[in-house]
Amino acid sequence: MTQRRFIRACRRETVDRIPVWLMRQAGRYMREYRELKERAGGFWGLCNQPEAVAEATLFAQKWLGTDAAIIFSDITLPAWAMGLPLEFNPGPRFPTPVRSANDARALANFDPNQKLGFVMEGIRKTRAGLPNDVSLIGFVGAPLTLASYMIEGTPGRTWNELKKLAYGDPDTLHLVLARVAEAVSAHAVAQVQAGCDALQLFDTTAGELAAAELHTFAFAYARRVIEAVKKTGVPVIYFARNVSAHLEAAADLGADVLGVDWGISMTAARKRVGERVALMGNLDPSALFCSPDVVGQRTTAILEEMRGAPGFVFNLGHGILPETPPENARHLVRTVQAWKPSS
Amino acid sequence: MTQRRFIRACRRETVDRIPVWLMRQAGRYMREYRELKERAGGFWGLCNQPEAVAEATLFAQKWLGTDAAIIFSDITLPAWAMGLPLEFNPGPRFPTPVRSANDARALANFDPNQKLGFVMEGIRKTRAGLPNDVSLIGFVGAPLTLASYMIEGTPGRTWNELKKLAYGDPDTLHLVLARVAEAVSAHAVAQVQAGCDALQLFDTTAGELAAAELHTFAFAYARRVIEAVKKTGVPVIYFARNVSAHLEAAADLGADVLGVDWGISMTAARKRVGERVALMGNLDPSALFCSPDVVGQRTTAILEEMRGAPGFVFNLGHGILPETPPENARHLVRTVQAWKPSS
Repeated sequence: MTQRRFIRACRRETVDRIPVWLMRQAGRYMREYRELKERAGGFWGLCNQPEAVAEATLFAQKWLGTDAAIIFSDITLPAWAMGLPLEFNPGPRFPTPVRSANDARALANFDPNQKLGFVMEGIRKTRAGLPNDVSLIGFVGAPLTLASYMIEGTPGRTWNELKKLAYGDPDTLHLVLARVAEAVSAHAVAQVQAGCDALQLFDTTAGELAAAELHTFAFAYARRVIEAVKKTGVPVIYFARNVSAHLEAAADLGADVLGVDWGISMTAARKRVGERVALMGNLDPSALFCSPDVVGQRTTAILEEMRGAPGFVFNLGHGILPETPPENARHLVRTVQAWKPSS
Repeated sequence: MTQRRFIRACRRETVDRIPVWLMRQAGRYMREYRELKERAGGFWGLCNQPEAVAEATLFAQKWLGTDAAIIFSDITLPAWAMGLPLEFNPGPRFPTPVRSANDARALANFDPNQKLGFVMEGIRKTRAGLPNDVSLIGFVGAPLTLASYMIEGTPGRTWNELKKLAYGDPDTLHLVLARVAEAVSAHAVAQVQAGCDALQLFDTTAGELAAAELHTFAFAYARRVIEAVKKTGVPVIYFARNVSAHLEAAADLGADVLGVDWGISMTAARKRVGERVALMGNLDPSALFCSPDVVGQRTTAILEEMRGAPGFVFNLGHGILPETPPENARHLVRTVQAWKPSS
């Protein structure tokens, strides 16, 4: 297998050009995705049928022409695999949220290759269908982020239930996070063993916590998963939202690549973290609602900031938004791929 | 008039104890507020009747026992005063949002003492009803934040309309912001002239923009308002959300006090900005959903961080949340007021 440019960039090796992919690139902004979901019987059907998983993942990669595909799945699956009832109507909801030590102890161990075998089968089918020079990324929610959904039940805007534990009952939250970190690690490692070339942790809730708890509950448990996945030898990407005041600490978690949101410039991010990690980012997903010209200009501006230096993967600063014009997403990808550093 | 401890803290002068107030302290978490709003005929009735404005403001200050009151009002009022139709159902909505240069030019000049005379009358009544040692804070939305509501019409979670201008049509956004900054400055100065002892700018949307645009569109226009208000001689507070990666720049806008959210510790904030401004913050509003003991512990932890040094005002890191138990808010205030630095 040839060394792929996405993997080379993750390892801060020189590349022929900057690799690009988009968080949530296989998603509801695409008509074909919506049709596929309809045929699969809804979101859950799309997640648990390997053929559908592969089709969603492959279609988006091919249509956009990205250097990597991310497996179509959902961060809530390991919670369901631990025995926590999960509903989709249409967003994920846990009708019996985890709020106590007993709730945490009731979470079952599971073998991801059994209970989430449909994900692994989807990965094998996808890998078999991808061009050799395109990387396949597996993913999990970081422990804090998955736990925050399990604790809230229905995600809110204030995360009060999570914070009642974080601030008022830290022992219980540690218990939940230890279980979740174990489950998520096993799920992540199984994805790599099934054929993923890299693994991303999404830690979108991390930045909701007060600074001290961000370190104790988000970063500390993300590190456990990163360490588990690192042993498989594939690059690991850590992405959190609204933590740019803590970028140095995020860069020290052991991940190969740090995802950066648009609240900080790539130049400033690089200056802050130095050369210890590769960086990924950071176009505001809302920029894709502008004209194609503006999409091209803003994409180019980020590329110029990074000047083609090694250790950079182009991406959005968060997942692509539902109403995004698909043509603009493709224009972004083509702009990155056509770009040459101005001399 | 005696020099009030809140004002002394804003000026980084020594104080007998740390002053405390809560953003949105007169709000819907209180039963008495909800009853008053009902009697006033809804939110708009509460904003435009000076008696009701004073009653809402005074009741909350007295019940909580805070060192400052913030006038009950809404950041959208200057937009309405510029002639932009405004509805409340129940949140504010602009049915004809500002999206073009012509829309910006159609915004009318106004005399805040005429068009928003009810605010000034509310301020006079409130000031007359407040104890002498309690400060009265006036407020405005910072230009970017008010403009973002005027541009979106209905606030969303992605601010795509704002960003279409910020990224794709900056000239139009500059035109809107110049008009809004002028209106907001006039409204802020009139509030001081009516009797406010300090003035706060709320810039809650600032942190939604990409880093470059945060400086160009949020900070640059906030500075204009700060400069206008500074000429009146009262202290100015600047509060933005999710800008902790840019704290130094926020501290350089000319405000006397910088509001800090809970995404960064007060210790780190002080270290980053040095002694050039007073700081205000930063308890996570969700902490008020914990037990009174936990509220007390977390409040004390922040006080210990600041060690009673001058130039600190205790507050939440954002507005108090609607479902907050009022007793916990009062317990926070009492904890601050009873605290003595441990030796």
